[in-house]
Amino acid sequence: MIRDLSDDEARAALPLKWEASGVVPAWVAEMDYLQAEPVTEALVDAVRRGALGYPPHGDDLGAAFSGFAARHWGWEVPAAASVATGGVMSGIRLALEVLCPPGPVVVPMPCYPPFRDVVTVIGREIVPVHLDPDGDGRLDLAAVSRAFAAGARTLLLCNPHNPLGQVPSHGELAALAALAHEYDARVVSDEIHAPLVLSGATFTPYLSVDDRGILVTSPSKAFNMPATHGAQVVSLQPDDHARLATVPVPAQNTWSSLGVVAGIVAWRDCDEWLAALRQRLSAQRALLTDLLADRLPKARMRPLEATYLAWLDLRGYGVADPAAAALDHGVRVAPGHDYLAGLEGHVRINIATSPDRLERVVDGLARAVGG
Amino acid sequence: MIRDLSDDEARAALPLKWEASGVVPAWVAEMDYLQAEPVTEALVDAVRRGALGYPPHGDDLGAAFSGFAARHWGWEVPAAASVATGGVMSGIRLALEVLCPPGPVVVPMPCYPPFRDVVTVIGREIVPVHLDPDGDGRLDLAAVSRAFAAGARTLLLCNPHNPLGQVPSHGELAALAALAHEYDARVVSDEIHAPLVLSGATFTPYLSVDDRGILVTSPSKAFNMPATHGAQVVSLQPDDHARLATVPVPAQNTWSSLGVVAGIVAWRDCDEWLAALRQRLSAQRALLTDLLADRLPKARMRPLEATYLAWLDLRGYGVADPAAAALDHGVRVAPGHDYLAGLEGHVRINIATSPDRLERVVDGLARAVGG
Repeated sequence: MIRDLSDDEARAALPLKWEASGVVPAWVAEMDYLQAEPVTEALVDAVRRGALGYPPHGDDLGAAFSGFAARHWGWEVPAAASVATGGVMSGIRLALEVLCPPGPVVVPMPCYPPFRDVVTVIGREIVPVHLDPDGDGRLDLAAVSRAFAAGARTLLLCNPHNPLGQVPSHGELAALAALAHEYDARVVSDEIHAPLVLSGATFTPYLSVDDRGILVTSPSKAFNMPATHGAQVVSLQPDDHARLATVPVPAQNTWSSLGVVAGIVAWRDCDEWLAALRQRLSAQRALLTDLLADRLPKARMRPLEATYLAWLDLRGYGVADPAAAALDHGVRVAPGHDYLAGLEGHVRINIATSPDRLERVVDGLARAVGG
Repeated sequence: MIRDLSDDEARAALPLKWEASGVVPAWVAEMDYLQAEPVTEALVDAVRRGALGYPPHGDDLGAAFSGFAARHWGWEVPAAASVATGGVMSGIRLALEVLCPPGPVVVPMPCYPPFRDVVTVIGREIVPVHLDPDGDGRLDLAAVSRAFAAGARTLLLCNPHNPLGQVPSHGELAALAALAHEYDARVVSDEIHAPLVLSGATFTPYLSVDDRGILVTSPSKAFNMPATHGAQVVSLQPDDHARLATVPVPAQNTWSSLGVVAGIVAWRDCDEWLAALRQRLSAQRALLTDLLADRLPKARMRPLEATYLAWLDLRGYGVADPAAAALDHGVRVAPGHDYLAGLEGHVRINIATSPDRLERVVDGLARAVGG
């Protein structure tokens, strides 16, 4: 049910990921799979009938997301809680600028690099809180408490976590919510990877433990369609909706009507495809474990609970920048220092490809570090 | 060659414009026509082969635009002068924040409302310079000069002008460029309507008279495809490109790869469709003139040199808000006060529809104002 793109097809379809010729790409978070058939058909239909105009004021994205949340996570969220926006990063920017209190922003590190950029762009101070990239990846709640005590009033959460592939537990999130409540702080939770929780882990929507949290999500990651430009800011606070409604277009990064079309279908009609995808990703995860045992035995891989982005500690090989070394061996992975400045010996590997290409990635990496 | 959408088709395809049932919509700037066939085919092909990922670092949008500019305006602009962005408004925001000197921003009024919003959103002061909405619509260069002398260092130009439908002359733009040069000010020129200059008028690209101007454009207006999310910031200054290259994603409002696909085809392969469109719009303009003479003889219509947005002075009928009155008669047009606060008795009419619907719009308006 998951249709792999051939090298030639992937090179044409995903020109950023595949830009360097002769390189097997396992860096940027795109999957070398065709999107779900219902998404394809809905988009083709929209294009053919000329539905390329502005998005409507009201749409069914919120209702479709509510159905998805109820079926997959047992979480009942009102359809009206969703406000459409252009993308997860612009949604986070909007949430920070319009809904969050002024003051420094707590950002757990390592993090997806735009998490740092967005705070800087809006002129706020970053308070880093370190997640142990080689430990359990849990939030250091004592550090968060100190940051709130020192004046921070916002925390930027990544749930599940990119790049660590970790799914915060219900207890951990509830403890964070209690801290946020104590300090009247707001947590902005990026849950774009939530549909990609793999077998063995349980996802907790942050808003299910904190009704003042702000969820930013999009079907674009799990359904492999960032070009459709649709995302959602979800809040359970009517005040937030009133504030968002007054935001003028230039601050809003308006969403696309193609994003609405594709998003509704993705949340509503693609469960079967998503199940097949998760099965495939679980198989890729198992394959990676086997390949590492065989060819990179000194690598330590974090348990990949969610996402298709595996986090590897390669310090056992004594190479400071294994990603740079891998590039010389025809493989592109993401360097750990992109996510935590100064971090040596780590890489993030995108496993959402064919078994054969994943093997080529591990082989290239092994040659690069002398595994 | 221009394929009209029926009422039912348009209602389904353009849900914002057509949101109110029982109302003939002539407000928001979307056309009730199907996009050009090469755009349709390129988008369908992209969707079918899974090209829904991130846009590439390098693309052919600049080259396609250069070809269009040379063929249509005899303007030679290097392909490398174009930098892709998400939309014209986010491109203007980017240009203001990253490329323009600090200080107040001159905005000729009346203007497209987001022109005011974008200046406010980035925390700058607006210096309004009034265009006579009932006169020749020319820039008051003495007022611009005073604004520059008082400290403004940026002007936001709309060329051709929305909502006045006016095409600034070469001489007028050259005089503005001389003023900008004198004060070391920068002019940001929104030229999204440039492909829609109708017979009888001649378009001058602002950068052809000021090599420090900043052009922001997109094929989305002329080719009726705002959902594809692609636009360009064009500058002849290498320093500008260096600065834009350092801008992080959250400030960039990233463009869509579908916008790249559609944009290349629109600039490169759709001249025939565009010629047919301009012919149709010229015919609609003539029809509007006839209908007004017949049913709204006291209306004064500005010469519609470009765009499909006609500007009407209906003060002869003594109705302060003819757009509100028209809504009660099943027609939605844009009120003049949206473009210039406090302006009474004016409306902007979208003529990019069928002859029949245009007639219904004028009839409704005539009933509303007692014409």
